[in-house]
Amino acid sequence: MKTLIIVGHPQPGNSETQEFLKTSASLLKNITWHELAAEPVFKINDERNLLMDQQRIILQFPLYWYSAPALLKKWLDDVLPESTGFNLRGKEFGLVVSFSHAASEFQLGERVGYSFAELLSPFAALAKHFQMQLLPPFLIERFAYQTQLQRQHLLLAYQQFLELPQPQSFAMQESWFLQKLTGLIDQTEDSRLQQRLNLIKQQVAENQTELAELTQMVHDFREDDSLNGK
Amino acid sequence: MKTLIIVGHPQPGNSETQEFLKTSASLLKNITWHELAAEPVFKINDERNLLMDQQRIILQFPLYWYSAPALLKKWLDDVLPESTGFNLRGKEFGLVVSFSHAASEFQLGERVGYSFAELLSPFAALAKHFQMQLLPPFLIERFAYQTQLQRQHLLLAYQQFLELPQPQSFAMQESWFLQKLTGLIDQTEDSRLQQRLNLIKQQVAENQTELAELTQMVHDFREDDSLNGK
Repeated sequence: MKTLIIVGHPQPGNSETQEFLKTSASLLKNITWHELAAEPVFKINDERNLLMDQQRIILQFPLYWYSAPALLKKWLDDVLPESTGFNLRGKEFGLVVSFSHAASEFQLGERVGYSFAELLSPFAALAKHFQMQLLPPFLIERFAYQTQLQRQHLLLAYQQFLELPQPQSFAMQESWFLQKLTGLIDQTEDSRLQQRLNLIKQQVAENQTELAELTQMVHDFREDDSLNGK
Repeated sequence: MKTLIIVGHPQPGNSETQEFLKTSASLLKNITWHELAAEPVFKINDERNLLMDQQRIILQFPLYWYSAPALLKKWLDDVLPESTGFNLRGKEFGLVVSFSHAASEFQLGERVGYSFAELLSPFAALAKHFQMQLLPPFLIERFAYQTQLQRQHLLLAYQQFLELPQPQSFAMQESWFLQKLTGLIDQTEDSRLQQRLNLIKQQVAENQTELAELTQMVHDFREDDSLNGK
């Protein structure tokens, strides 16, 4: 799947979050990383052609005053035409949004007081206008305070957000992880590391088999129930 | 009441709507008309001082892709500090928003599909952050298609939005209208026009007296009811 990431941070080089996401995305294929800050003036036709060429379009930005930074808004205002000739129908449209509040503050009565469904609704209206399929937003909460382990999880979740079809299932995430692990094992020349990675892979594969058996069992129980008229 | 109108249209001189609003506001006192398009670079301290000095702050803009134009967003991003030292508490905060869809399309299942409460929620969150009192938005629907009569109504409603306290009552609007009419009569030198304006004024004043009597009557009925224990 060809995926375009439009980075709306006005100074991505100064942002630890954006640098982290850039590194995470650079390990994947079929990703176009497009920093708007690098362009003093948008070449409208180039931008439009770039959009037409993708299957998944991601707007990635920090929340400034509860919406997109001016730079990203300028790109939207300049590049997207209102005319119906410009066809993005059926493409997937995702948002990667980072913010410095706790996610729990985005609700009634809390500090921010408004939900992401409300604050990001202009983007939902945009997706509706162009008949694009809106993906669930990928939310990055207080990156600066995240531990090393939280960041490792973030890296995997972000890569999965970029690569996997939506909606994601646990089985899909596990298969994706096994595939990445296999790639890593093949590339590694350190035989002890290879051995350890193989152990992890074996464990994940066993979990996967067990999960499949449990799923089948639940399915069988349900069928028995429905045969018994319950 | 000192009122600041921050005009976020990128080319207000080319906008029939903005020109109309500018003329309407120019007939009032205590209004500062502030076009952001006139400033290539914002002088942050001047902008902040200007804000501090007002009782009512209005952001006025056309809806571009369901939110504010990039120019206004840049002003917000550049001028408003996150630090708590900047105090706008208790000021009134209003939005004047023009758009080319019908207002009825801003709801579930309709063409836009999202409400103004949703789309403008980033501004509500901003008001909450600075502890400003959010006014109901002043919405201008399809100005280009409005008749002469609709525009006359718009002019009065806009002036009332700028000058009257909120929430507005009908009695307040009527008093406001009488006051404006008196001013007009005093200024006019055409005696036949003066005579006609006086007739209108007399009619409005009579309506006002009748309304006051009816209100008093309703009040009395209610008191009777409550004395009878109903």
